[in-house]
This record gives sequence, C-alpha cells and structure tokens, in this order.
Amino acid sequence: LQSRLPSVGTTVFSVMSALAAEHGAVNLGQGFPDFACDPLLLDLVDAAMRAGHNQYPLMAGAPALRSAIATKIAALYGRQYDANAEITVTAGATQALTTAILCCVHPGDEVIIIEPAYDSYLPAVELAGGKAVAVAMQVGEQGYVVPWDAVAAAVSPRTRLIIVNSPHNPTGSILRAHDLDALAAIVGGTDILVLSDEVYEHMVYDGQRHESVSRHPVLAERAFVVSSFGKTYHVTGWKVGYVAAPAALMAEFRKVHQYNVFTVNTPMQHGIAGYMADPAPYLELAGFYQKKRDLFREGLTGTRFTLLPADGTYFQCVKYDAISSLAEAEFAKWLTAEIKVAAIPVSAFYRDGKESGVVRFCFAKQDATLRTALERLATI
Amino acid sequence: LQSRLPSVGTTVFSVMSALAAEHGAVNLGQGFPDFACDPLLLDLVDAAMRAGHNQYPLMAGAPALRSAIATKIAALYGRQYDANAEITVTAGATQALTTAILCCVHPGDEVIIIEPAYDSYLPAVELAGGKAVAVAMQVGEQGYVVPWDAVAAAVSPRTRLIIVNSPHNPTGSILRAHDLDALAAIVGGTDILVLSDEVYEHMVYDGQRHESVSRHPVLAERAFVVSSFGKTYHVTGWKVGYVAAPAALMAEFRKVHQYNVFTVNTPMQHGIAGYMADPAPYLELAGFYQKKRDLFREGLTGTRFTLLPADGTYFQCVKYDAISSLAEAEFAKWLTAEIKVAAIPVSAFYRDGKESGVVRFCFAKQDATLRTALERLATI
Ligand SMILES: CSCCC(=O)C(=O)O
Ligand SMILES: CSCCC(=O)C(=O)O
Repeated sequence: LQSRLPSVGTTVFSVMSALAAEHGAVNLGQGFPDFACDPLLLDLVDAAMRAGHNQYPLMAGAPALRSAIATKIAALYGRQYDANAEITVTAGATQALTTAILCCVHPGDEVIIIEPAYDSYLPAVELAGGKAVAVAMQVGEQGYVVPWDAVAAAVSPRTRLIIVNSPHNPTGSILRAHDLDALAAIVGGTDILVLSDEVYEHMVYDGQRHESVSRHPVLAERAFVVSSFGKTYHVTGWKVGYVAAPAALMAEFRKVHQYNVFTVNTPMQHGIAGYMADPAPYLELAGFYQKKRDLFREGLTGTRFTLLPADGTYFQCVKYDAISSLAEAEFAKWLTAEIKVAAIPVSAFYRDGKESGVVRFCFAKQDATLRTALERLATI
Repeated sequence: LQSRLPSVGTTVFSVMSALAAEHGAVNLGQGFPDFACDPLLLDLVDAAMRAGHNQYPLMAGAPALRSAIATKIAALYGRQYDANAEITVTAGATQALTTAILCCVHPGDEVIIIEPAYDSYLPAVELAGGKAVAVAMQVGEQGYVVPWDAVAAAVSPRTRLIIVNSPHNPTGSILRAHDLDALAAIVGGTDILVLSDEVYEHMVYDGQRHESVSRHPVLAERAFVVSSFGKTYHVTGWKVGYVAAPAALMAEFRKVHQYNVFTVNTPMQHGIAGYMADPAPYLELAGFYQKKRDLFREGLTGTRFTLLPADGTYFQCVKYDAISSLAEAEFAKWLTAEIKVAAIPVSAFYRDGKESGVVRFCFAKQDATLRTALERLATI
C-alpha cells in the first residue's frame, strides 16, 4: 500500500503524552487542562441526552448552537454571520481546518503556512494535493513576529490559501491589528483565501484584545475562521468546534463536511448551546489563565531557562541554551525521563525540523501541578 | 472559488427530513429511530463525564472501547483484531469511510462502487482524486443481488478499492457467504483493497447470519471493516463508529485520521465501552427490528405498493408502479406533501440518478408511528 502521507508519523503530542505516562512525569506537553470543567456544562449535556437529543442534528449543526456562536462573534468581533448559511459546527477544530483545506485547495495549488505551525496544516494540504510554502516567523524584541514582507514574497500565481493562527500555538504570540492590515494588503484584490485558526481566542493577556480575522472587513470576506469549545470550556476531549465563513465559502465547506463527518455529537451541541447563554466563562478565561501564566513565569524566573514572551494561548515557550546543547526532541525527552516534566519540542512545528533551542510548556494545569513542575525544573 | 466537489448538492436525507418537517409528515425518510435509547447508556456517559473523562483520549480511541470492539468482533465473526494496532474509533461511520478512502486512493486510482450506493462513497472518492466505476445491482428472485461477473469485468489495472455494504442501504439485501467468496476470487492475488460498510451488522432477519468481511480469511487481510454505534444503540446523533483493519492498512488510516479529526468524543467512548460489557443489546437487535419489519410489511400487504425483500437493515424498499409514473424524487415529495409520509427516492443512490420506481421507508420507529404511516399509505 503506497502511502498518501509518506512523511507523517505519530503526532508529537501523542508521543510526548505516552512518554510522560511511561515516566510518571508531570505532563506539560500536550495541551489540555488537568482540572475539571464547570459541572453546569455536564448538567446541560446530561439534560440534553435525557430530553432525547440523541439523533442526527442538522448537517450544519444544531440551530441553537449556531445561533449562540453567531451571537458571540457579533458581540466580540462586530461581524454578524448568518447562523444558517455562514456557521457550521465541526468535530473539533482539527476537522474544521482539514475540511476547509480540502474544500478549496486543488491539486497543484500553493498554501502559505507560517512556521512554527500546528502540525495538522501540512498533512491536510498534502492530502488535498496542494503544495505547502513555509514562511518562518522571526524572533524579535516582542517575541515571535510574522515577517509580512516574506509572506508577500512567497505569494505566487498558484497561491490559493494563507493559513494564520492567533493566539499562536506553540509560540504564544498574537497577531495585532497592523498584522491583519498587512495580511489584507497582500490578499486584497487577489483570489487568495485565508484560513484563520483562533482556537485560543479567549486567552489573550495583559489587557490586549484578540484581533479576530472575522473583525477585519477585507479578511473576513475571504476567510474561514475556526474555533473550538475544547480549549475554552476545559473539555478538549469533546471535539466540538466550528467554522464561520461567508456563504459562498461555507457552501463549499459543507460539501466536504457533509461527506466527511456529516454532523457532530448532538447532546454536546445542545449542552454547549445552553452553556453559551452566559458569556462569563469565556470572558473570564483570560484572567483565569493569566494568573497561571504569571505563576509559571515567576517560577521559572531565576532558573537557567530563558522565558519568551507569552501574550496568548496556554503555552509558555522557553529557550534552554544555558542548560543543554541537545536537539529539542532529545532535550524534551530528557526533561520527561530525568526531570519528570514533559514538554513539546518546537522543532516539531517546522516541516524541516528546524532547531531553535526552544521547548513549549502547557500551563493549563492546577496550581499545585504547576508548582510541582516548577520545583523539578528549578533543580536543573 | 472553484469547487472541489462540483456535482455535490445537499444530501437527500437532509432534504427529505426538512420537507417532512415542513409538511408535518411522518418521517420514514432519513434513517434514525424516533424512540429513546436505553437510559443505562446515558447513565454510563454521564458517569464518564462526572469521573472526569473529558480530555483528549488516545488518538486511536479509548483503550477500553477498542478492546470491547475487538472482543465483540472475535466473538461474533471469529477474527481477533489487535485492539492496539488494528482498531480505530471514528466520528461515526461516515468519517471512517471517507478517511479509509482518502488514505488509500491516489489520484487516478479507480474505485468500484456497487449501486445503489450510500451517497458518501462517491464524493469521498472524488475528493481523493480517484475515479468511481459503478456496477449496478440486479433485481432477481431474491431481491437485489450483486452481479460478481460484472464486478470482475469492471476491474482494471488502476483498480485500487472495491466498496461493499452489507446489510445494504437502501435495498435491505445482504451479502451471503458465496458473495464473499466471489469477491475474494476477484481480489485474491491482486493488490485491490476492500472497504466494507457494515453499520447494519446487527440487523439481519429470519435467522440468517451477518457475513462480515472480517470473518472471511482472504478478504479480512485486505479490508477496512466499518461499523457504528449510532444504528445499533439508537443514538445516531452521537457519531461514534469504528474501523477494523490489518495493522499495515490501519497505519495508513491513522495517518489521515490523526489530521482529520485527531480523535473522538471521550465521554461517549467511555459510556459505550461500559455498555458493550453486556452483549444483549446488540444480540437482541435483530429480533427487535424484525417485529417492526413484519408489522410494516403486513401493513403494506394489500396496498398498491409492491414489497421488495428485506433481509437486513431498518429499511423497506417498495415499488410504486401500480400507483404512479412520477420519477422517484417527485413521488417521494408527493408522498411527503400529500400523504404526509416521507420516504427516500432510491434514485439518489445512483450516480446517474437511475430510475427504478422504488422508494425506501425506514421502519426504525415506534409501532404507533408505523401504524399512523401505514394508515396514510393505505389511503393511496
Ligand atoms: C491534538 S492534541 C494537541 C493539543 C494541542 O493543540 C497542542 O498540544 O498543541
Ligand atoms: C447521514 S443521514 C442518513 C442516515 C442514513 O444512513 C440513511 O438514511 O440512509
């Protein structure tokens, strides 16, 4: 059997979680919380099941959930998507991203990916028969930034799609209004589409605001905007996400979605729709995680790790050149096996495995878990 | 935006369910039960959520569920799949089917589809860049049968995959042991793979047995065998299915699965795993649905519909040439709007919309629902 994805191995998140379990390490690798979600959310799912919401929902998603999503986007980002024609509920953000890529990338089309990049983008482009063109972020005074001139230079007549991600996994950087303007200057007047991965939209710190692509008039007209409830509501295993896009794009998205998963778990959709009635859980999320970020950063201050900026997401990247000259994957394994704290090598987010001496920690953990990890990291 | 799937419209199931709702018709179209699932299953999902099973499960699925699936297949069909390397939990059977197609069909490869065929197969093949080659079932004394000589004649050097489906949607026919032998004679010694859609595996009537491809030594070695819990446990909206395949095939399946959905709803997986401890619900399913099939067939006896055989699935196909010369789609709409009973035109299962004067009713309904529908159908 000839592989469709010959270069794909097991995702680094699975590899590191398995290694963490094997060594009894504190798992700050794969991004997921180690604390419980709000019991009210469980009550609402349970009530939906008992009320009989267990059969196929509409293909595009339960109307109540789509309308709650449209209301939220309008309130936060000022764009009114049509819940009927412009919102689709997906089996998590990964499915939304892959389906968006499959629905618009034709064989031979080019897709610009900004590295480091979440590891699902590239295989999805390859599956579509597209060609990924990578542009590397630069590390400047404010941490990782997107070099828009390099993005502009990477555009060719075959460019079909540019994928952006803010707040950014793994670097914790965020796109600012001038970044979106720079992107708009590149794609405006072309037929290049934008795929915006915004699953960490509610985790932006220090009073900064999340600049959603859905807020930008030029970009929103040509963009698939993807988010998810797993990160926001502390239920990464529920696999409920969504995509918002103008009706013409959404029509193509749904053609693929309909025959990929058809639709998404009914009781979870109803439970989440009910839970969204109160905006507090997502509005308060940045404050909640900022405290954890601060605790984690303070704990690392004075160690031999160098902290990189962390403006968003629940990830903290650190340089370790003062500690070791090991390659990132080896250093992450050593941390897991010897120090008993698992991390993710940032090299896994580069197609060519580029080394920058940086690993990523996830701070979506109970304070006690973070303290245990910090004690261990301080011994290095 | 140039479409990747230019010939795809809204799936007939969504269209007919919307029409049924619009006209207040009894919906015997889209296949889903109108009765509740076992409350024990809900209790188990709720308990899983309360126990904290809300974060990412392993990519291939929760180990407890994979092992329950392997145990079931071994008990019923005599093949021992390795739960670690040969079983993957999917977001419903549709995702399993599409992922299996995407992982093995290369651009230009041919895929043999036996028509009438479930409407997701063809778009998935097109998305992979493959070419679908359709072979039509024949209607003989025993209802719909697969003409294996025609399948053999359709094989070319580019043939990569043959898709089979038993119990068969929409016809309700089943493959028998000699059918599997005939298929094995075609694929044996070639590098042609088999994709077997067995989501109605527990609905085979009149004491006949389900001939799973996983039972057949030649076929199982080269097959993706797909099933789902939605139909078996009366929870079509939960979107939990699975695929079983030899390790080499499964490795390729998981490469695509990992970047398509990554993984599947955790609490549902745990709840279903617990529920599978008792085989009674699936072992008793055929008896349960056979009573409904008999009630429905008896009710149509003496009407102007001609019953076709119904050996499996929860579908009953009928000819209506004694009633109308309308095309199937028009007849189904008329039934829905005027008689207030929704059905599915079987022409929707043929790529070229072939007319055979047959519509499909779903009898997965409360007896009272079936009686209401029968009263209305008897007035024609
Ligand atoms: C798909 S598991 C990975 C979770 C995640 O988004 C991350 O750790 O980056
Ligand atoms: C994906 S909705 C269709 C349900 C079904 O399998 C059918 O009605 O044939």
